[in-house]
Amino acid sequence: MRLRNITDARKKLELHPELVVLEPAQYKGRWSDCFGNDNPIFLEVGAGKGQFICGISEQLPDTNFLALEKYDSILFRAMQKLIANPRQNVLLLRGEAENLLEYFGANEIGRIYLNFSDPWPKKCNANRRLTYFRFLDKYRHILVPNGEIQFKTDNRAFFEFTLQHMNEYGMRFDCINLDLHAEEPECNVRTEYEISRSTSGATIYRLVCGFQ
Amino acid sequence: MRLRNITDARKKLELHPELVVLEPAQYKGRWSDCFGNDNPIFLEVGAGKGQFICGISEQLPDTNFLALEKYDSILFRAMQKLIANPRQNVLLLRGEAENLLEYFGANEIGRIYLNFSDPWPKKCNANRRLTYFRFLDKYRHILVPNGEIQFKTDNRAFFEFTLQHMNEYGMRFDCINLDLHAEEPECNVRTEYEISRSTSGATIYRLVCGFQ
Repeated sequence: MRLRNITDARKKLELHPELVVLEPAQYKGRWSDCFGNDNPIFLEVGAGKGQFICGISEQLPDTNFLALEKYDSILFRAMQKLIANPRQNVLLLRGEAENLLEYFGANEIGRIYLNFSDPWPKKCNANRRLTYFRFLDKYRHILVPNGEIQFKTDNRAFFEFTLQHMNEYGMRFDCINLDLHAEEPECNVRTEYEISRSTSGATIYRLVCGFQ
Repeated sequence: MRLRNITDARKKLELHPELVVLEPAQYKGRWSDCFGNDNPIFLEVGAGKGQFICGISEQLPDTNFLALEKYDSILFRAMQKLIANPRQNVLLLRGEAENLLEYFGANEIGRIYLNFSDPWPKKCNANRRLTYFRFLDKYRHILVPNGEIQFKTDNRAFFEFTLQHMNEYGMRFDCINLDLHAEEPECNVRTEYEISRSTSGATIYRLVCGFQ
C-alpha cells in the first residue's frame, strides 16, 4: 500500500465520528448497538483505501461491515469514499490486527476478509503475517461458529504458507481458487490493488476457510 | 498419455520377468525379497513411459522403486528404457491403482508418487481421481507411518480439488509448490509430460503430504 501522508489526517477523521471509530475498544461486544440492528457483522482486516468495503457493503445491504485500518492517512481516503457514497452499514475502525481481542467479543464477527495483506516475505518475519498461528487464535475467538475467513493474495509464497499453516491448525477449506480471475465468481469484489496487479498479469489466489 | 498400440506388447513383456511383474499380487508383503535387500520401497502409481522412474532411481540408488502401469503398450516403452539403462532397484508392475491393496501389505511402501494422473475433469467422475477418498484410504494402508505422497499436476482444478480433499481427510501438508518450476528443487525429476507442458507455459503444481 503506497502511503501518501495527509496533513492533519487524524483531525480530519475526528470530524466524522458517524463514519470513523478511533477507539474501537469502547464498543467491544456492542457493535450491533452501533448499527441499531442484529444483522451479521463482517470485518475487513487491513481495509486500505476502502474500495473493497464500499463494493461489498453495496452487494450485501443486510450485513454490517467494519473496516479496520491502522494508518490515519489511508483511513482518510476510505472516509472520503464513504462520504461520496454514503452507506448505513459500514463503519471504519482505526486499529491493528494485533489488538483484535480488545475490539471484539467472542463470536461477534460472522466473516473476516483478509485482502492482500502484507506478505512479510522474509522468514524471520513470518509471525507478522496475518495468517500466522497467533492471528488464527484471535480470528477463532471472535468468529461465530461456522464463520469464515476469505483470504486473497497475489503473493504465491504467502498463499503456500497460508494453506500449509491453516491445514496444520486444523482449519477446514471451503473453497480454493488458484487463479481467481480465470473463473471469477460474480460476487468477487476487486480491491484497487487487485485490479492493478491483475492488469499486470499477476495470478490472484483466494482461500475461503473456517474453523472446525 | 497418448497411447500408441504395440503389437504383441503382452508377449514382449513376458520375455523380461526380471524387469516386469505381470501379476503383482503374488508378491504382496514380500517385495523386499524381490530386491534382496531391506531398502525402503517407493511406488509410482501410473508410471507412463518410465522417464520418471529411470531418473528418480538413479538419483536414489539406495531405494527400491516399483512403477505401476495398467497399459501393456506403455509398460513396454518403460521396459525398453530399463533395458537401455539397467537398474538394480527398479521393477515395473502391471496393475491398477484400484487394486493396490491386492498388491501391497500394510506399511510396505515408504513413498507414493502420483505424477500427472488423469484429472477426470467432469464432476461425475470425481471418484476416479487418484486423490479421491477411497484412494487415500488405500495409500494410508500401504504407507509406512510418516510415509509421504508426492503429487504433481498441471491441472489447476485437480490441484484445488486435491488440496481441499486431503485437508478434509485430515492429512498433513509438508510442502506446497504453486509453481514448481519457478523455484525447482534440485531433486525434482521431470516426467516426459511435465517437460512438454512446462515448455508450453503451463504451471506445474506439487504437493508433498502424508497421513497424521
